[in-house]
Amino acid sequence: MKRSFAPIGVFDSGVGGLTVLKALRERLPTEDFVYLGDTARFPYGRKPKDMIAGFSRQNARFLESQGVKAVVIACNTASSCALPEIDVPVFEVIEPGVAAAKAAFKGGVIGVVATKGTIHNAVYQKRLEALGLSVWARACPMLAPLVEEGLAAEDEAILLIEHYLKDRPVNLDALVLGCTHYPVLKAAFQAHLGGSVEVVDSASTTAERVAAQLEARGFLSTTGRGEVTHFVTGDPQSYQHTASVIGGVDGEIHHLEIEELLSAGSQRAERRGQSALKVVA
Amino acid sequence: MKRSFAPIGVFDSGVGGLTVLKALRERLPTEDFVYLGDTARFPYGRKPKDMIAGFSRQNARFLESQGVKAVVIACNTASSCALPEIDVPVFEVIEPGVAAAKAAFKGGVIGVVATKGTIHNAVYQKRLEALGLSVWARACPMLAPLVEEGLAAEDEAILLIEHYLKDRPVNLDALVLGCTHYPVLKAAFQAHLGGSVEVVDSASTTAERVAAQLEARGFLSTTGRGEVTHFVTGDPQSYQHTASVIGGVDGEIHHLEIEELLSAGSQRAERRGQSALKVVA
Repeated sequence: MKRSFAPIGVFDSGVGGLTVLKALRERLPTEDFVYLGDTARFPYGRKPKDMIAGFSRQNARFLESQGVKAVVIACNTASSCALPEIDVPVFEVIEPGVAAAKAAFKGGVIGVVATKGTIHNAVYQKRLEALGLSVWARACPMLAPLVEEGLAAEDEAILLIEHYLKDRPVNLDALVLGCTHYPVLKAAFQAHLGGSVEVVDSASTTAERVAAQLEARGFLSTTGRGEVTHFVTGDPQSYQHTASVIGGVDGEIHHLEIEELLSAGSQRAERRGQSALKVVA
Repeated sequence: MKRSFAPIGVFDSGVGGLTVLKALRERLPTEDFVYLGDTARFPYGRKPKDMIAGFSRQNARFLESQGVKAVVIACNTASSCALPEIDVPVFEVIEPGVAAAKAAFKGGVIGVVATKGTIHNAVYQKRLEALGLSVWARACPMLAPLVEEGLAAEDEAILLIEHYLKDRPVNLDALVLGCTHYPVLKAAFQAHLGGSVEVVDSASTTAERVAAQLEARGFLSTTGRGEVTHFVTGDPQSYQHTASVIGGVDGEIHHLEIEELLSAGSQRAERRGQSALKVVA
């Protein structure tokens, strides 16, 4: 198969990454996708970094075994750990958001909202401060559950956004949504902040980055139809239900046992090892 | 084994039922327990009733295969579906709460707070109204996630409880906490409502019911030590972490594949079938 005809692989620990998938499909309507929701091992945010890096490697290798031409890590936790070293380009969701925040900087403060883990580990703060920007950060532990409960357009969303932003600095230039669930709340954040603050979401900025890089490598397809094949390591029915709050699932959903995920990925790694040996010989 | 020495089995779709387990251990300190957290099939609230009844039967049979003398369904959703027919007494969490609310009724209104599913299906409303009581019901979809995020003592808890109770009638006699997660918020509810409203939680009322019934049957143990063996169908590490917000897990945690759960339960059902045949023969 010519590489440009191959699908793009996307993975997350759950449904949050579907916002990234949605942005990718909008930006790249003639591509097809394989989405892996590793819900059996959800949540990633509470596990050690080396364990998450291991999950990332396993997930990326599984996606490689499905013939993808690139892997998008649609998860802030996994993006902040060691990235998998595989044969196709790997994209993560943090750097594109940081770059967009830098572009929006006008001498004030860049705000970051994310889960407890991402804020506690200063994932965005470190990178933004390294660029010389002033940063205000706020953990919003109730916002991902809010989105998953399907309440993004309800009173609870306004109540909690007001609560989490009540101590924000007056001179905020941009607010980075540092969690893949939050693009669903983008309009609510924007309404609360008004037009003078740029709300940066990692979904659309990552989609832009992926499009630019694949184009530069000549990897873009013109014949895909926006089709998505879903693999989910946990319960497919729960996945489908939760996914419905993030735009839903319109492709096939396959249940994937962790054992199958591991064996598909390791067979792929073995084949690569063998062909590398051949080249050397 | 003499029946009174056997442990008490408890199951839930996740960690919520640990509040019931905690109340049982406090009320019955000389009993041992087997807790099954069916996290691989969580959440139950979004699945069809006959499917949940099937899960209940499978879970109850698995607990029977572990030699329990009674099964406590520590889950409102499963309690509202058909109860499993097994060889040991089965307890559910709704009826004890309804009875306590009736006892607290002084001619005003009984309030019920629960998940969307429990309120939407009028699980408590129907039973309370059948007793001739006036009922006010409010779905609180963010409160179970709040407890699981470990925020029961944080600002978000007060904010959301205020929000959910703002339209409550002035003549509330009692508020039934119709979700097994909510006992963790009992003090916050009580503080908000003041001393004139009785806050009824299903955990302690169910523990009371179980104690009375087992005593009446001569099934109570005097030699147990409050020990708990946990079985979890999903990821044990995620379970342990989430459980830490509901008093934690101080016993062994065993991972249990759904296949093992099913086969242990069906072997048990088969043995019962055979011994029944023998008796008939």
